[in-house]
Amino acid sequence: MAQDHDEVENGFNSSRNDDGHHHHDKKDKNEGEGGKEAEEFSVERAFDGKEVPSWRKQLTIRAFVVSFVLSVLFTFIVMKLNLTTGIIPSLNVSAGLLGFFFVKTWTKFLENSRILRQPFTRQENTVIQTCVVASSGIAFSGGFGSYLLGMSDRIAIQSEDTNLGYKNLSLTWIIGFLFVVSFLGLFSVVPLRKIMIIDFKLTYPSGTATAYLINSFHTTAGAKLAKKQVRTLGKFFSFSFLWGFFQWFFTAGDNCGFVSFPTFGLKAYEYRFYFDFSAIYVGVGMICPYIINISVLLGGILSWGLMWPLIEKRKGDWYSADLSPTSLQGLQGYKVFISIALILGDGLYNFCKVLSRTLVGLFYQVRTRNASSDLPVAENSSPETAKLSYDDQRRTRLFLKDQIPTWFAISGYVAIAIVSIIVLPHIFHQLKWYHVLVIYLFAPTLAFCNAYGCGLTDWSLASTYGKLAIFTIGAWAGSSHGGVLAGLAACGVMMNIVSTASDLTQDFKTGYLTLASPRSMFVSQVIGTAIGCIVSPCVFWLFYKAFDDLGVPGSEYAAPFAMVYRNMAKLGVEGFSALPKNCLLLCYVLFGAAIVINLIRDSIRKEWARFIPLPMAMAIPFYLGPYFAIDMCVGSLLLFIWEKIDKAKADAFGPAVASGLICGDGIWSLPSSILALAKVQPPMCMKFLSRRTNARVDKFLGF
Amino acid sequence: MAQDHDEVENGFNSSRNDDGHHHHDKKDKNEGEGGKEAEEFSVERAFDGKEVPSWRKQLTIRAFVVSFVLSVLFTFIVMKLNLTTGIIPSLNVSAGLLGFFFVKTWTKFLENSRILRQPFTRQENTVIQTCVVASSGIAFSGGFGSYLLGMSDRIAIQSEDTNLGYKNLSLTWIIGFLFVVSFLGLFSVVPLRKIMIIDFKLTYPSGTATAYLINSFHTTAGAKLAKKQVRTLGKFFSFSFLWGFFQWFFTAGDNCGFVSFPTFGLKAYEYRFYFDFSAIYVGVGMICPYIINISVLLGGILSWGLMWPLIEKRKGDWYSADLSPTSLQGLQGYKVFISIALILGDGLYNFCKVLSRTLVGLFYQVRTRNASSDLPVAENSSPETAKLSYDDQRRTRLFLKDQIPTWFAISGYVAIAIVSIIVLPHIFHQLKWYHVLVIYLFAPTLAFCNAYGCGLTDWSLASTYGKLAIFTIGAWAGSSHGGVLAGLAACGVMMNIVSTASDLTQDFKTGYLTLASPRSMFVSQVIGTAIGCIVSPCVFWLFYKAFDDLGVPGSEYAAPFAMVYRNMAKLGVEGFSALPKNCLLLCYVLFGAAIVINLIRDSIRKEWARFIPLPMAMAIPFYLGPYFAIDMCVGSLLLFIWEKIDKAKADAFGPAVASGLICGDGIWSLPSSILALAKVQPPMCMKFLSRRTNARVDKFLGF
Repeated sequence: MAQDHDEVENGFNSSRNDDGHHHHDKKDKNEGEGGKEAEEFSVERAFDGKEVPSWRKQLTIRAFVVSFVLSVLFTFIVMKLNLTTGIIPSLNVSAGLLGFFFVKTWTKFLENSRILRQPFTRQENTVIQTCVVASSGIAFSGGFGSYLLGMSDRIAIQSEDTNLGYKNLSLTWIIGFLFVVSFLGLFSVVPLRKIMIIDFKLTYPSGTATAYLINSFHTTAGAKLAKKQVRTLGKFFSFSFLWGFFQWFFTAGDNCGFVSFPTFGLKAYEYRFYFDFSAIYVGVGMICPYIINISVLLGGILSWGLMWPLIEKRKGDWYSADLSPTSLQGLQGYKVFISIALILGDGLYNFCKVLSRTLVGLFYQVRTRNASSDLPVAENSSPETAKLSYDDQRRTRLFLKDQIPTWFAISGYVAIAIVSIIVLPHIFHQLKWYHVLVIYLFAPTLAFCNAYGCGLTDWSLASTYGKLAIFTIGAWAGSSHGGVLAGLAACGVMMNIVSTASDLTQDFKTGYLTLASPRSMFVSQVIGTAIGCIVSPCVFWLFYKAFDDLGVPGSEYAAPFAMVYRNMAKLGVEGFSALPKNCLLLCYVLFGAAIVINLIRDSIRKEWARFIPLPMAMAIPFYLGPYFAIDMCVGSLLLFIWEKIDKAKADAFGPAVASGLICGDGIWSLPSSILALAKVQPPMCMKFLSRRTNARVDKFLGF
Repeated sequence: MAQDHDEVENGFNSSRNDDGHHHHDKKDKNEGEGGKEAEEFSVERAFDGKEVPSWRKQLTIRAFVVSFVLSVLFTFIVMKLNLTTGIIPSLNVSAGLLGFFFVKTWTKFLENSRILRQPFTRQENTVIQTCVVASSGIAFSGGFGSYLLGMSDRIAIQSEDTNLGYKNLSLTWIIGFLFVVSFLGLFSVVPLRKIMIIDFKLTYPSGTATAYLINSFHTTAGAKLAKKQVRTLGKFFSFSFLWGFFQWFFTAGDNCGFVSFPTFGLKAYEYRFYFDFSAIYVGVGMICPYIINISVLLGGILSWGLMWPLIEKRKGDWYSADLSPTSLQGLQGYKVFISIALILGDGLYNFCKVLSRTLVGLFYQVRTRNASSDLPVAENSSPETAKLSYDDQRRTRLFLKDQIPTWFAISGYVAIAIVSIIVLPHIFHQLKWYHVLVIYLFAPTLAFCNAYGCGLTDWSLASTYGKLAIFTIGAWAGSSHGGVLAGLAACGVMMNIVSTASDLTQDFKTGYLTLASPRSMFVSQVIGTAIGCIVSPCVFWLFYKAFDDLGVPGSEYAAPFAMVYRNMAKLGVEGFSALPKNCLLLCYVLFGAAIVINLIRDSIRKEWARFIPLPMAMAIPFYLGPYFAIDMCVGSLLLFIWEKIDKAKADAFGPAVASGLICGDGIWSLPSSILALAKVQPPMCMKFLSRRTNARVDKFLGF
């Protein structure tokens, strides 16, 4: 399962393709030759005895039941991450493990009761993964933590620009919106499938890694290891869930409980340097590459440790001293716009980089194709022209067996586009039908670019394309005609297409390597997307209704990107006029710095490049504060120590531990939000007071 | 090192003789035949190549430097335990390990610098252990948590009976008092030495276990394991110390910090059911046998979960409703006197049991001796008369080589007794010279009984003999002539003699098994006792001055036994008149229950007996509350799980982990009390408030 919607921002994609290794660079090396490796140790020969079921038989009811359960689980996790920091690590491994675990338990149970009709195959496993990817992908590309929430009245009030337009969120129109935009990407991908996988032989590191995982599960030794991993995952899942539950008891009131534990003292806490005992981010830190963790921490130190305290000293000079602390004219403005500058600088650089690589790659592909056009299957861009291995032959044959007609894909795309063009302007009055039409004309090209780039670099640029839409459509609509809302809505339309395109091509790669039929994959994607369009908004709605302070800076569910996206749209329609003093200068400096850092990263040697931080990762704590960076570094440190002590064990079980921590805490947000909705309040408050305040409180309470 | 002063109360002695196993019953089986086992795998042959240094050479300066450092360390630990709950586990293993570690590092350092004159021998190791036992033994038998503190004005005020006399504590008279009473036990033991060890061949399980530990350290494989154990100990020592340090930051004010963490909710906290995150008691729980932990928890549930809430409901009926909560006329009285009843019931039973076994044992010894009086060395009471093994021959020869003349011991005893009879009445005016004389006339007999009983059962009854002195001398002096103080002082005199007698005979057994000379042992004991007489009062004084609430119920340093001892003395001189309604009835019931439980324990089969709780252990939480029982059970549970996962590793490293936890937290009390003395207050308070109170506080603070 390749869950590669563009986590948070492009910089984080390197954390997605997780198969137990943690360095993006390393991965490129290991997995880049995935197809070649397979030639040496033929994977398919190990499966020779096993029959591949027909595509209809790959789609079992049990698979979709399990997919639905996992979709809900992962939607909760992704949503919680969306709404807290926006950092979403790869959940591939845990989804793979849990999918395997559920179906295996199921089949074992049925085997014992002697009513099992069909054994559990890796194709079925791939179908489950695909379905879960498609549905939990919506939780990200639906923009619940970014553009969609950015439209809401809550964020508009926070941002003090209700005059620029806002849209009250409601469950019905969100579901409708998702249904009309989410299936387009699916149809745009279908014709690309053969080109990307068979003709271009693109790598898709995440998809390949996932396929290896699934293949290994279905060998005897692999199943044994998987069982152990599942047990580890289960243990840490329970621990993490119970820990979340335990913490809950102490959170009656604001600033109560472990989440406000001033681990390094009250002064450090004021600048958000503290360990908040959140199992989910410790797990995230274990999955993310070390450099991401270090970057986030560095960004936190640079911003909250250095820049903000310095800017705060200029209070009354650079900005008025009697502004509310959340006013964008004050310190808050520096935080928001400087992080936007960093994100845009990094995004622009990577956009240019991936685009140029895409073009160069395409150019070579086309030239090679022309030179050897008589061959039915074009070779990879590598100069050596080897004959097809047994694995490749078998895989290609099965991949090409069940075709999906191109006319079907094109007519599907056009039909949905027409529905969408009619419906969308009714949902967002600021978005005109011609805006949508223009997006849909360009979208297939951009979807192709993104799927191709992702295949080459494992780097999905969905949110960058989204930002492009914000600025272009926003400026086109204009400030007076609700450009902010039009921009955000356009961002949603664009992101959904582009993100699903790369996601689903990854899945096709996985299917190719596990001999799953493209047709069963397609059906699974359609079902998964439909599940996602319903489950994601419902889960979001639960959070939105349960936590009144969702989107408020400093609260548990701060959803930083909602504010960032809204202000990007504002910047697009209004220009730089509203920024406080010197803010623009700082923005330019950091925009430039992001590009320069990336340039350095790409120009020096690889063994040094991995020590250069990622600007995108550095930008997140600018707005949120470094507390979650400390969580992540704790996770990272634990993994580092574990690797020092027992590398083999850490590699085999590290991802399972991390997934357990993430899933347990993530799923705890379900009961926690239900408790909040039911107005069940925790019984106690664990409060942290300075000695002075404590003496006052003790006196007040009459101790 | 056999640190077998009577920890807390007799019931706990089973936790002392710790060599990695945790069941008293099991130990009896394993170690009971210590001498026999040695015959099969001759230990001494392994040491054949190594020369035994002369007794003067066993006494090195480095040994005493290390002993001094360890004495201070262990005095802190014992003192902290004395003053918190009074439960003191065996520190044998950690003392053994740390002694080995220090001298080994020292010799290694000297070896490298090529100025090492003498290698580190096991005899020297035994000398260190003996010295540390002797000095840290004073921290217990000095009564800083029991009779001595019970005399003080603080406890008298708590107990609301200043009219019965109190004595302001001062460093000078405490040191003086200890010097005149502590050396007596030492001289009384010397003539017993040969009888107990060579003639009677008593087991002394703790002493034997310690000797095996020391012997194993000085073999190559043993040294390697010891090194690993020391490393584990060091790790957990640091963790525990740093954890103590971290906790400190959050303890500005009362009821602040982790020590008041209402882990199971505020209602449970009110009845002292909570986990207080104290590393020291988690460690203690790991060292104590499971049955002790369960007993303590059971006692806690019985008292604070059942009896106290029920008695509280009778408020206004059984006792006046407008008494202060610490008044002994109210609920507090039930707590104190019911726990005294349990302790006395258990004490009486065990006194009778051990005394009868002593008499029966002696009777057999004498009969066997008479029957085979021509043999130079009498055999054990076992019917089989084996010839002496190589180990025993060698050990006996060396043990008898360096004699200490009996005239020296007797004249020493008499000289010190005379000094003592003159000095003591000047310290305690209530204690007359004839009281002291009577004690000293009976003391050698009681010392012999205790040393003999301890050799048979590993059960030291020092505090029971102390209680005997409280009641007899207290009643003799009479209430009007300060009987309470006289009783407590007499208790001190008696306990010091009787406790050192059994301690030091244990040490002689260790010396016998490690070929250490009795002369070097004696010198080491004298030096250790002198160190203890100075270090212990100084450490106590640090605590006493640093923590104003020392001895106050519910505070961190509640020192429960101070109150218990004072009230025992009061009971002795005043009778039962002062007890609240129905208290005496409950006392009778629980006194009887203690005896019945012990009877059941001794009459049923051993495999069932180990599930019967110990009344003595049950009594401690009656007064203190079950919070430390929960800590101990956590430790016990951790060890249990560890044993389930990897029995071999848990057995090898469990004691090291426990010792690390105990030592780290124990030694943290040094900086913590210095900080308190220097009036450096922690910066924060971690407070726990109910939701309601929290809302009020938030309003008050204007959030």
